Amino acid sequence: MTINESNQIELLEAVAQITGRVEEAMRADLAHALQGCDPFLIEVLEYALFGGGKRIRPLLAVLSSSICGRRDEEIYLLAAALEYLHVATLVHDDVIDNAHDRRGREAVGRKYGMAAAILAGDWLHARSMHLIGRLTGSAGLEVFCRATGAMVDGEFLQLRYAGDAGIGEKEYFAVIDRKTASLIASTCTLGALFAGGSPEQQQALGCYGEKVGAAFQVVDDLLDYLGDKQQTGKTVGNDFVEGKITLPLIIAMEQAGIDERKELKALIGGDRTQPEAYDRLCVLLKQLDGLRLARQQAERFVHEAMKSLEIFTAGVDEQSYGLLVSIAGYVLARNK
Amino acid sequence: MTINESNQIELLEAVAQITGRVEEAMRADLAHALQGCDPFLIEVLEYALFGGGKRIRPLLAVLSSSICGRRDEEIYLLAAALEYLHVATLVHDDVIDNAHDRRGREAVGRKYGMAAAILAGDWLHARSMHLIGRLTGSAGLEVFCRATGAMVDGEFLQLRYAGDAGIGEKEYFAVIDRKTASLIASTCTLGALFAGGSPEQQQALGCYGEKVGAAFQVVDDLLDYLGDKQQTGKTVGNDFVEGKITLPLIIAMEQAGIDERKELKALIGGDRTQPEAYDRLCVLLKQLDGLRLARQQAERFVHEAMKSLEIFTAGVDEQSYGLLVSIAGYVLARNK
Repeated sequence: MTINESNQIELLEAVAQITGRVEEAMRADLAHALQGCDPFLIEVLEYALFGGGKRIRPLLAVLSSSICGRRDEEIYLLAAALEYLHVATLVHDDVIDNAHDRRGREAVGRKYGMAAAILAGDWLHARSMHLIGRLTGSAGLEVFCRATGAMVDGEFLQLRYAGDAGIGEKEYFAVIDRKTASLIASTCTLGALFAGGSPEQQQALGCYGEKVGAAFQVVDDLLDYLGDKQQTGKTVGNDFVEGKITLPLIIAMEQAGIDERKELKALIGGDRTQPEAYDRLCVLLKQLDGLRLARQQAERFVHEAMKSLEIFTAGVDEQSYGLLVSIAGYVLARNK
Repeated sequence: MTINESNQIELLEAVAQITGRVEEAMRADLAHALQGCDPFLIEVLEYALFGGGKRIRPLLAVLSSSICGRRDEEIYLLAAALEYLHVATLVHDDVIDNAHDRRGREAVGRKYGMAAAILAGDWLHARSMHLIGRLTGSAGLEVFCRATGAMVDGEFLQLRYAGDAGIGEKEYFAVIDRKTASLIASTCTLGALFAGGSPEQQQALGCYGEKVGAAFQVVDDLLDYLGDKQQTGKTVGNDFVEGKITLPLIIAMEQAGIDERKELKALIGGDRTQPEAYDRLCVLLKQLDGLRLARQQAERFVHEAMKSLEIFTAGVDEQSYGLLVSIAGYVLARNK
């Protein structure tokens, strides 16, 4: 076993330990909060919350708190609250997109109906805010509600841009900044705030989260073209069919000559449900280097994320530092 | 003009003045919170919030604070937050029910699409929690999130009971307690908490709100049978078509003989979209006294609401006391 491998096993064990404790906190909190509630509500929430999520947000919250010097029982509850909110947005998103699957299982709305999905999302949203308010006070709520507001705003921007072949990198980054990056940034900021970290530490972790979040979304958009359905649990080419113009396509448009651009626009404006349209698009994306250059952008974000952790290198908590760096790296390596 | 009439005009003026200030607070808060947001999000929120709502919840919050001795600018912002949450639930409910109209206009989801409606509801929910946390702290969030959790639970109970001819008063009151009364109760409690009212005052106002809320819902359910579409903006008989078994029908079932009960069950279990089924149901409800006895129940709730205000009779704020009593009375008099 190389040093690198033994290192990785150590990291994986640490991650498993943290996510295990977050799930324990979720179960304990649910048992308390759902006392006397309708069994159907309980079933829907269990299904939504314990379906094999990656738990990246709670992990980041725990590590952000930890690297600022605090790691007690309550951080796992705060982490649970952040996962609640994340799951609430997924459940509502799947209703909006009329999605069939999520993480390789039926989406909540498909399985239990739209009413149950909307309401379960609302329940999780309320519970999440309640816990965040209790654990981080008004300052934490402020950070967080700015992010949830931005998230909704990002979804609206995305609706606005759907199927618009004219959008560029600026519009794309405006959407992912609001939709994904701001919530992950605020997750890290909250962890630091909870631990009583200095403004400099809060800011550094917020910046780290923002960059990790942006990289995460770019990779997500890449996986929509490159992913393996067996692994991602998602159908490849979904974004194109739905008219979501993501980075690979935007870069391809920028790189394209007049004829290629014409062809790309025709594909976007045409019947996107035809498999031939998607196949042709993939050929063009490859030719025009859209996939490779988008990946480079994700790498740049990860590099920036790691750089913003530099203020912690002199600190004592090597494990948390190592894990935060690894997570940034994992974002590039993930295939689901 | 009799003393009573001049009294009533004074009350109406006071109500108009309070709701005017709440709407100002809403507009100022939105202008601030929505800076730089997508214009479509702004349009949807404006449409959802300023569509002629009765503003009963914000009014109750202001009066509850006022009667406990505090009435400054911030109470209007708290009241605005409570209206945000109320509107968020209406917008989501209308998506769930696939409703065409609300307050005589197209429902938000119909006008702007389901995606915009779900997201706008989420935005309002987040903003509401943020303001409640800021203005009433963790204790306020606790009160409130218990109520929003109960609301979701009530919706689940309602889903469970839909079309079930076997439900009785117990189940009906369990639903309206969670769905309507708990949020109005917490609105009043929050107003008192915000004002620094004593636990006794908080409890009295919470009880007042609960009873007013219950009466409000019973009258709402009565108006579904008796209302004038011109005035209510709602189609009469909706609840029956959707299989919602409300108090008039439950009472009629209790009063019914064997044959009538059989007929009622057949109507509930049959094709409820047939106008003849609804017409026959109305005849039976009248015969079996369901409508009159349900109204008596609403009157009992209003009486209890007024009774719980007794601890304030020796107080100084006669206007707030008078308005709270009037609102309880208005619940019975309203026809929309």
